[in-house]
Amino acid sequence: MSDTPAASVMDAIVSLCKRRGFIYPASEIYGGIRGFWDYGPLGVLLKNNIRDDWWRNMVECPPIGPDGQPVEIVGLDSAIIQHPKVWHASGHVDSFNDPMVDDRETKGRYRADHVKVLVPRDGQGNSFAFVEDREAAEKKIKRDARRNPTDYDEVILTTLPPEAYARVVGPDTRTPGTLTEPRAFSLMLDTYPGPIRDEDNKTYLRPETAQGIFLQFKNVVDTTRVKVPFGIAQVGKSFRNEVTPRNFIFRSREFEQMELEFFCPPDDALMWYEFWRAQRMAWWQSLGIDPSHLCYRDHDADELAFYSKATVDIEYKYPFTAPGFGELEGIAHRGDYDLSQHAKHSGQKLDYFDQDLQLRLKEQGTSAEEIKTRSRYVPNVIEPSSGLTRGVLVLLCEAYRRDESRPSGEYLAFKPSLAPVKVGIFPLVNKEGMPEIASKLYMDLRQKYTCEFDAKQSIGKRYARMDEIGTPYCVTIDGDTLKDQTVTVRDRDSATQQRINIDQVGSYLNERLSG
Amino acid sequence: MSDTPAASVMDAIVSLCKRRGFIYPASEIYGGIRGFWDYGPLGVLLKNNIRDDWWRNMVECPPIGPDGQPVEIVGLDSAIIQHPKVWHASGHVDSFNDPMVDDRETKGRYRADHVKVLVPRDGQGNSFAFVEDREAAEKKIKRDARRNPTDYDEVILTTLPPEAYARVVGPDTRTPGTLTEPRAFSLMLDTYPGPIRDEDNKTYLRPETAQGIFLQFKNVVDTTRVKVPFGIAQVGKSFRNEVTPRNFIFRSREFEQMELEFFCPPDDALMWYEFWRAQRMAWWQSLGIDPSHLCYRDHDADELAFYSKATVDIEYKYPFTAPGFGELEGIAHRGDYDLSQHAKHSGQKLDYFDQDLQLRLKEQGTSAEEIKTRSRYVPNVIEPSSGLTRGVLVLLCEAYRRDESRPSGEYLAFKPSLAPVKVGIFPLVNKEGMPEIASKLYMDLRQKYTCEFDAKQSIGKRYARMDEIGTPYCVTIDGDTLKDQTVTVRDRDSATQQRINIDQVGSYLNERLSG
Repeated sequence: MSDTPAASVMDAIVSLCKRRGFIYPASEIYGGIRGFWDYGPLGVLLKNNIRDDWWRNMVECPPIGPDGQPVEIVGLDSAIIQHPKVWHASGHVDSFNDPMVDDRETKGRYRADHVKVLVPRDGQGNSFAFVEDREAAEKKIKRDARRNPTDYDEVILTTLPPEAYARVVGPDTRTPGTLTEPRAFSLMLDTYPGPIRDEDNKTYLRPETAQGIFLQFKNVVDTTRVKVPFGIAQVGKSFRNEVTPRNFIFRSREFEQMELEFFCPPDDALMWYEFWRAQRMAWWQSLGIDPSHLCYRDHDADELAFYSKATVDIEYKYPFTAPGFGELEGIAHRGDYDLSQHAKHSGQKLDYFDQDLQLRLKEQGTSAEEIKTRSRYVPNVIEPSSGLTRGVLVLLCEAYRRDESRPSGEYLAFKPSLAPVKVGIFPLVNKEGMPEIASKLYMDLRQKYTCEFDAKQSIGKRYARMDEIGTPYCVTIDGDTLKDQTVTVRDRDSATQQRINIDQVGSYLNERLSG
Repeated sequence: MSDTPAASVMDAIVSLCKRRGFIYPASEIYGGIRGFWDYGPLGVLLKNNIRDDWWRNMVECPPIGPDGQPVEIVGLDSAIIQHPKVWHASGHVDSFNDPMVDDRETKGRYRADHVKVLVPRDGQGNSFAFVEDREAAEKKIKRDARRNPTDYDEVILTTLPPEAYARVVGPDTRTPGTLTEPRAFSLMLDTYPGPIRDEDNKTYLRPETAQGIFLQFKNVVDTTRVKVPFGIAQVGKSFRNEVTPRNFIFRSREFEQMELEFFCPPDDALMWYEFWRAQRMAWWQSLGIDPSHLCYRDHDADELAFYSKATVDIEYKYPFTAPGFGELEGIAHRGDYDLSQHAKHSGQKLDYFDQDLQLRLKEQGTSAEEIKTRSRYVPNVIEPSSGLTRGVLVLLCEAYRRDESRPSGEYLAFKPSLAPVKVGIFPLVNKEGMPEIASKLYMDLRQKYTCEFDAKQSIGKRYARMDEIGTPYCVTIDGDTLKDQTVTVRDRDSATQQRINIDQVGSYLNERLSG
């Protein structure tokens, strides 16, 4: 990232994303729909590259565990819509909600814990509420109450006693007493699958992919050869009806997650928590993210869910949080909460008989009674849960560079293997046999890499466009190619060119694009 | 497919899918949720392989067009939830529905055009309705009406005049007159994003990914270098609230699509229709599907939507349709319907100025007036739209083999490059240095192929399991490996083994698994 002010960096990234086809507002021709985004031709390639890297490192080549062997992980793709009871068991129906206040006059709606109120210190007259714009509230004080804003204390709306609401002037009104008391607003989007529309059939778009994994824990144990400890990994869309979607794709209502639920014996859970905590940080760094832009944030005891023994966030220094950090991935020690809840609500047994542990305990001379108790258990779960779409945002922020010396003025320095387009292939001019050679090279390379063939405009403009979309290499076929079979390869980051034989292009790219 | 009766083949496939972790009923521990399925560890790998093959052949290496150059296609990943107006413009709110009848007594609900009625030929007494079980209806006739079923004519419920409903005995009741008249039942699942729950904010889970593509047509034209003709490709989940989900994953309420919208000049649309018709058939065949199991079914004029000039289905001989065929992919000539509808409803211009055509017309000496009219147009759309999850079903049906001579009794003969697991790696016994050699080979091969390492049970049982999940090759490390560095490679289809040097395993697999 450059040292341009945060807002302007973020604006520049959003603008580049739209202008070059990374990310568009969803339904833009209809004025958009708040909190929803579409991934354009380049955005979907970037997103797929992150998805495939995660999947490869989770399911195809999982990391080496503490015993020197790869840990065992299988994949899953569960439905977005599940049985209504799932969301009661998981606790989401009861507690996955935000407190909201409405304004009876303007029909405006606010997240109650985002509404601040300026309360007169002497207890006389009205209070003035605002969400982000304190200045507007102060203006109202000066105009309506003809007093000084310094005579007011700032408090959070939810700390006011209900009877005080009658004297609160809402953020977008001038009449006191129009705000309702806070009410719970579910963060889940509901729908009714099947022909009957009643409470029993009301279900939800999943707010996380994780529950789909817990639901299939038993099937996976029964139908594959996994043994605890093992993980189930899933990539897929989730939905949260955020009251205030914000910061581009950072907080959107439809988003994509990459979640692993790692099932382990209760006694080993803390060890696996530490293991995944380290693994996940290493993975984000392997995507080319500067280690100083990432940090751990351990949750305090009072932030932890009652069932969680420990949770840590991996945070990233987003332009809109800098110099602070914001959430990218959470790694949670969830104990046996999820499996126990589903066992209770479904009446199914979701415990596990650990034959290996039984054997080990026997060898240690443990008593038969203790062996019996300890070798059947409800596995504990370590959950590394990250946002795939948030990963896209992080890679865009991380790659964004201002460089006034380039015609493009800015470029994206993605790690080459993650760039949406790997190679640009250009005939210098669109004649004299150059397009034919370029086209042959393109047909060859596209078997292996995402390539763009471009014969239009000046070569400078073509390089500039490739800089903007983060293409690491451009191969140009020019007059010399016809004579000596050499081409130039331009490197995005150094903006320098190198002449190599056209037969070497494959190995040149191989070296630089694998891994 | 074997020549076992269809029902039992399908039952065997469903059972194998559950037993070996391809496909599980969603929310099974809660009794399931009708029309929803989860893809298990092997199912998700198989599905990803089809998805990646389609994406590769659409976006990364699109086919060669009629001019000898690759056609131009870019990818997209649009949101499942779009602006409410989208579904009014697309026509889905008004016409994407099924006629339903309810039973007031039993609260049962049926698709009206699926309900058949046995009507007394002499006009005396009650009629008897049934959905699938004609025998049950005949029993009722014999018992309740004490007459002979041959004295009744079979008609479709919707052809009865409303006054005749009073004498119809519903499929699951004995009282006449409990069925309501048919009513339209939307096939879309609705939900309310945002804080306000009113008609203006009611939107739908997309019933097809296609509309997301039309919505971004203009952005893609404006922000990438594509020129008409070009395509936008998308893979993603869609939702249809089918009244009667059936035939395993063939008709489910949540499913995954692979859709291409190919935009072309109106004059060339029929040519591109023919092009994609041929291409898409060739692609399905390239997945190893027997050409005799696939056929075209051209839609009759009276089946076509009013805006469509031609539509063809590619059909597959499913076990439950054999000897008939059922839908797998539709290729539709949609004219300019979709872009025109969205232009009208959004007020945005979605036409295209074709510079190349303008130039060509000029060269042909066309009049300025005609050039002006013809070179600005709303592109026509050719839409090859297929089901990814339906593709999974087809590959499973196609691969399924009974073979009583094998310990497994059945196996899956996937095309090797599409098999979920490519290689099984087995130490013959779990000692004498064999596990170490096998493990080294596994660590090597997993970099490139999805592999399974298995050291448990007899080698016969391990082969049997690999047969059942369709793994094309198994490499076994045995006593001789220690002496002469050779291993056996077992071929799934011939069930024969071959001895090769352990160093040759990589190239052996390379030859057989690429493409």
